[in-house]
Amino acid sequence: MTNARLTPLAQSLPATVPFVGPETQERARGAAFDARLGANENVFGPSPRAIEAMAVEGQWMYGDPESHDLRIALAAHHGCRPDNIVVGEGIDGLLGYLVRLIVGQDDAVVTSAGAYPTFNYHVAGFGGALHTVPYVDDFEDPASLFAKAAEVGAKLVYLANPDNPMGTYHKGADIAAAMESLPAGSLLILDEAYVECAPDDATLPLSAEDPRVIRMRTFSKAYGMAGARVGYAIGHPDLILAFNKVRNHFGMNRAAQAGALAALNDQPYLETVLSQIADARTRIFEIAKANGLTPLPSAANFVTIDCGKDAEFAKAVLDGLIARGIFVRMPFVAPQNRCIRISCGTDEMLGALAMALPDVLADAKKS
Amino acid sequence: MTNARLTPLAQSLPATVPFVGPETQERARGAAFDARLGANENVFGPSPRAIEAMAVEGQWMYGDPESHDLRIALAAHHGCRPDNIVVGEGIDGLLGYLVRLIVGQDDAVVTSAGAYPTFNYHVAGFGGALHTVPYVDDFEDPASLFAKAAEVGAKLVYLANPDNPMGTYHKGADIAAAMESLPAGSLLILDEAYVECAPDDATLPLSAEDPRVIRMRTFSKAYGMAGARVGYAIGHPDLILAFNKVRNHFGMNRAAQAGALAALNDQPYLETVLSQIADARTRIFEIAKANGLTPLPSAANFVTIDCGKDAEFAKAVLDGLIARGIFVRMPFVAPQNRCIRISCGTDEMLGALAMALPDVLADAKKS
Repeated sequence: MTNARLTPLAQSLPATVPFVGPETQERARGAAFDARLGANENVFGPSPRAIEAMAVEGQWMYGDPESHDLRIALAAHHGCRPDNIVVGEGIDGLLGYLVRLIVGQDDAVVTSAGAYPTFNYHVAGFGGALHTVPYVDDFEDPASLFAKAAEVGAKLVYLANPDNPMGTYHKGADIAAAMESLPAGSLLILDEAYVECAPDDATLPLSAEDPRVIRMRTFSKAYGMAGARVGYAIGHPDLILAFNKVRNHFGMNRAAQAGALAALNDQPYLETVLSQIADARTRIFEIAKANGLTPLPSAANFVTIDCGKDAEFAKAVLDGLIARGIFVRMPFVAPQNRCIRISCGTDEMLGALAMALPDVLADAKKS
Repeated sequence: MTNARLTPLAQSLPATVPFVGPETQERARGAAFDARLGANENVFGPSPRAIEAMAVEGQWMYGDPESHDLRIALAAHHGCRPDNIVVGEGIDGLLGYLVRLIVGQDDAVVTSAGAYPTFNYHVAGFGGALHTVPYVDDFEDPASLFAKAAEVGAKLVYLANPDNPMGTYHKGADIAAAMESLPAGSLLILDEAYVECAPDDATLPLSAEDPRVIRMRTFSKAYGMAGARVGYAIGHPDLILAFNKVRNHFGMNRAAQAGALAALNDQPYLETVLSQIADARTRIFEIAKANGLTPLPSAANFVTIDCGKDAEFAKAVLDGLIARGIFVRMPFVAPQNRCIRISCGTDEMLGALAMALPDVLADAKKS
């Protein structure tokens, strides 16, 4: 047995993937999707300045292992110090490093049942013991999360604001207030991947120096650079410095570093895209309602739609859309699995959705 | 103390970086280097087809988590199956995953004293116990490595062929013969980052199905794409599949995937670059000899130069070059630290080296 050499932990892990990629589904169905609306990417793409920066950057050189220029710019953008910021290979990469730093075998971790599965993947990957609390009315519930953290002695608590996959959000001030009951031994990971798409009051009104929380941000969503793999974390300098113990120092793509910097420096373009995202949300709302479905309020670049029946029905809707070339996802657990999730798309993509949905629903109701 | 939450292992680790980046040095000296000859990058850059592929690829989409098209092409290139190949964020990223899969607390690992420090970084990062054997006549010594592995019960043995930092190489057939004494419980990591630059007989003449060895390859060296972060490993399918337990599935830069595929498909360009690298090696040889120094034979894209005295003298030469805007490195431990390492550069860069070296040596001899 070749893998007898694996550690006991590695042997115990399944060889799974948190999400099946759309390309995998395309290969399985033998055709490309017409509308790529399942991965919460930003179809409007990055700033032309970012595209230009990525094209001209000399890829023969390794990236700067300190991501110095980008960190300086991010610190200015957020009104904190460069020492408050670590740049990494997307939030996924940073979550992996953070879990590795903090979670040992059987250490307790708390998240919501149905929240981001890649976080759970990392917790399992380092032997942590995951505890979950349910959503409350389709919202993640800080009070329940922090109470559970106290109960199980959690080292990490995960909360996304806005939430993925539901799209709902809390005011930052409400999260800060709830943090009064965050246990002293627990670190809050606040995943703000979608926060640029949310109302201004979503932002957590706490200093980057606050040792109780580390915030995760990304260039994959509002900035339109999912393929570039640039995320960053904002937190206390001691914790930020600890990433240097384990991260892949030369792991950043050099063109992506340059592209992220250019994208950050083009805030007018970001504003334009946020407006396009808001318009696309409205359009998805209209399409859902026109078909008798219930869109949930969204502060993100996607809309979660309550299909109004059970998980089986929602799955039939999902499968019907995919069969018609519309890539969407259903990354939910009960009772949120009555829903499907649709990313903001171009007019053309959402037109394809509007065209397909009546037939899909008719078929789903028959089955 | 903010970091009291870290695991005991994480607390024990230093916040180090295996290599200080040239940008860091440039910021420290307040000026850019004129010649970037220290990181074994490929100044001749990637295929124009790769540059074009990277520029046109839609970075708003996540990369394919299976790197499917690239793996198919690599399998055809190497005459193996796609199941023998895992693509990752450079060899550095893949080494991290592999060490994580195999090395638990206090598990024994063997390498050569002075071999690739990033591998050692990963071993320390997962709590492994590193054992080293010395170089023999400036060559890594497979027989010593495998004997040490048997002695300490190593789970992993690291060997680079060609070697970095010395540039020397073994015939693949000789390594295969030495593997007869590789203990059954030990996995050999054969780091072939530079093998495209080496004579044909450097290639290991063993099947990709051989469970005793995993080979590491990269697009960072001969293919000129260090900034893109694309490496791959070739090994037994059971071991390759195990990477899916821990890897960052959506960690690959999408443009980099497309660029690597285009670069692989442009073998005529690779041949041209290999010829340029060979010419640059010859030029570095000539420069070294003209200055009374001893270049070591090199099968890589760099030349290691014996400065002929002790480590202090070599360090003075290194510092002198850096002070004159020539970025080179000295990643050696005794007795190899009598050397400096110079990457193949453009004619202009090597001209700058040739211009600076006499003064540098004169100063070093004075100090």
